[in-house]
Amino acid sequence: MPADPFQWLTDARRLREKAGLVRALRPRTGQERELDLAGNDYLGLSRHPEVTRAAAEAAHRWGAGATGSRLVTGSTALHAELEAELADFCGFEAALVLSSGYCANLAATTALGSRDALLVSDAANHASLIDGCRLARARTAVVPHADAEAAARALHGHHGPALLLTESVFSVDGDAAPLPELSAVVRRHGAGLLIDEAHSLGVVGDGGRGAAHAAGLAGSDDTVLTLTLSKALGSQGGAVLGPRHVIDHLVNEARTLIFDTGLAPAATGAALAALRVLRREPERAARVTAATRLLHDRLTAAGLDAAPPAAAVLSVRAPSPEAAVRWAADCRDRGLRAACFRPPSVPDGISRLRLTLRADLDDEELAEAVRVVTGTAPRPA
Amino acid sequence: MPADPFQWLTDARRLREKAGLVRALRPRTGQERELDLAGNDYLGLSRHPEVTRAAAEAAHRWGAGATGSRLVTGSTALHAELEAELADFCGFEAALVLSSGYCANLAATTALGSRDALLVSDAANHASLIDGCRLARARTAVVPHADAEAAARALHGHHGPALLLTESVFSVDGDAAPLPELSAVVRRHGAGLLIDEAHSLGVVGDGGRGAAHAAGLAGSDDTVLTLTLSKALGSQGGAVLGPRHVIDHLVNEARTLIFDTGLAPAATGAALAALRVLRREPERAARVTAATRLLHDRLTAAGLDAAPPAAAVLSVRAPSPEAAVRWAADCRDRGLRAACFRPPSVPDGISRLRLTLRADLDDEELAEAVRVVTGTAPRPA
Ligand SMILES: Cc1ncc(COP(=O)(O)O)c(C=O)c1O
Ligand SMILES: Cc1ncc(COP(=O)(O)O)c(C=O)c1O
Repeated sequence: MPADPFQWLTDARRLREKAGLVRALRPRTGQERELDLAGNDYLGLSRHPEVTRAAAEAAHRWGAGATGSRLVTGSTALHAELEAELADFCGFEAALVLSSGYCANLAATTALGSRDALLVSDAANHASLIDGCRLARARTAVVPHADAEAAARALHGHHGPALLLTESVFSVDGDAAPLPELSAVVRRHGAGLLIDEAHSLGVVGDGGRGAAHAAGLAGSDDTVLTLTLSKALGSQGGAVLGPRHVIDHLVNEARTLIFDTGLAPAATGAALAALRVLRREPERAARVTAATRLLHDRLTAAGLDAAPPAAAVLSVRAPSPEAAVRWAADCRDRGLRAACFRPPSVPDGISRLRLTLRADLDDEELAEAVRVVTGTAPRPA
Repeated sequence: MPADPFQWLTDARRLREKAGLVRALRPRTGQERELDLAGNDYLGLSRHPEVTRAAAEAAHRWGAGATGSRLVTGSTALHAELEAELADFCGFEAALVLSSGYCANLAATTALGSRDALLVSDAANHASLIDGCRLARARTAVVPHADAEAAARALHGHHGPALLLTESVFSVDGDAAPLPELSAVVRRHGAGLLIDEAHSLGVVGDGGRGAAHAAGLAGSDDTVLTLTLSKALGSQGGAVLGPRHVIDHLVNEARTLIFDTGLAPAATGAALAALRVLRREPERAARVTAATRLLHDRLTAAGLDAAPPAAAVLSVRAPSPEAAVRWAADCRDRGLRAACFRPPSVPDGISRLRLTLRADLDDEELAEAVRVVTGTAPRPA
């Protein structure tokens, strides 16, 4: 028997165990009766009958898979329809659908981050933007969180293409990027602005059109959006939106477009149906943001520490990773599911109880959330 | 109006136009009557009624999306069931399902390619393995294609974890990796072996169990497989298979698992149903490999240059990128859809007409393929 080449993983496991940072999958059974404040189905559309029916119909009509790369057999009329409606909804010229939001960020950053380019990336950006910067041939400058002046300093003196990367609503704390300031900075420096609207689409702005739309950046020559279809749209997949020639460039150059199977028809159809529900019922967006603000106000009134939420993500700080784990477990014991964010998934090392809201929560569920979260909160150290 | 920061893309477009390398999406309408030898639906399962019905049922039962990361709300009993059946089918201890084969390769390479590790990568490996090497903190050595001795030389003298990365059937030429030789090399050097079975699962080996299974490597301590659910299984998604502690390590460390939404229930259910059809009808695998060999023999007998196919991919060499493009276009005019592979998507710069077969092609369709491909073939330069 040869030596086990993966023996070294044992050390990594021991370190995790010692630090109390072991993760495991806990599959849902479908029988849960808990209050779910951990998922990203912000508008409650993942189980909307029109959305699930559209998923089923697309599978029947187009097959269970796309059967190939978008460039070969993996594009259907359904993909084209979704692209046209996403672009129209957010106010951009063109859109490109990819198999995930993760791959959309890899596509945009690598295709636009050519060898002589500079990528300026917010320190709190999502893993997929960070990985995109690492894959791109460009140089990357990481700048302090939500700091337009720091971004300006990073851009200063650079010649050649430059792109500033930011989430519009940050996934960890749920806070907003200063888009007007960032846009002014990139314009002053002739740079482009890439905005990841993962947590804004369907939640922020007029009828859920996103933060870029709300900031007046829709359709501008220097702005590119990345979206995910897996959160407010309740499906799976991602997209890049921007000027036509930018999208054409991605079709030609983005490896996660060229070398990846196209998004499954069911996911494509579901996202399209969800977008149509959202257009018809724009009040869903307002409802979930109002509920999130209400929960924020109640929790901070009870002495908890949470950043003002820009959308449907509300993070409450915990004194330690252990306290955050215990807090989430205590919530779960009392019937509330919340996520626990702790190192290494948080860039600043601060552990959090992370609550995400849904447009279909009622007043009693919100009141219960307040009771459970405050009732199980760790005492300040 | 500020200057267009994406102006530089114009130069890239001009270069592409001059080289005749412009790509565009051509969505399927669903009305095509052509013979499709371009997709990766090797067993014809993407439209199998049990498979599309399973997709529809999963969307109805679990919702259109997974609603979160596999580590939060994105794991369902259906994901766990698929993982158990994939592991059992291929003969491995454990499996982890990801949102694409691309993300499965990123997960395995980055989580196992730690800072002090060496990744040894075949020069013809797929973009997703290459990107995984670039994202991993490890050092990468690229070795000549399918060359076990070169791999041995690269491993020689390295201390610390090492992993040899190969496809079992290469996506460009459809040729087989020398798995017994590669396995002997890694064992001699105490390294691990990562085998990407994207084009082998469902096609190669006993009932489609893959090339690792056929080479007697199933379940061995030093072997890790990556799979895609988007080719022979006709769906979308990917998986990593291996010893339990390796999979546990990925759950804890792989960024494309931790920071990506789980695979949509419809795709999960479809892949599971396809796997069950394959188990019940193992002859599908033999049928498609026999058809591919037959096509190879007929085309080479007619003087065309194609590597002996190991699975369902058959690549015929073209004298130039322009000739390959024209060849594919001429095939299309005569009702046959084939893919055209040309720089920069081919590592060796050789353009090809790439044909992929399906288990459900009949003799008349195969004969027509021979007629069209030989009848449109470019004259040797
Ligand atoms: C800010 C941000 N961008 C991108 C992604 C990736 O999107 P997806 O899960 O669709 O791959 C996520 C979360 O998953 C996210 O939070
Ligand atoms: C060898 C190989 N590995 C991985 C992949 C990626 O799989 P997926 O399309 O499921 O992301 C592909 C093709 O798409 C491939 O050919």
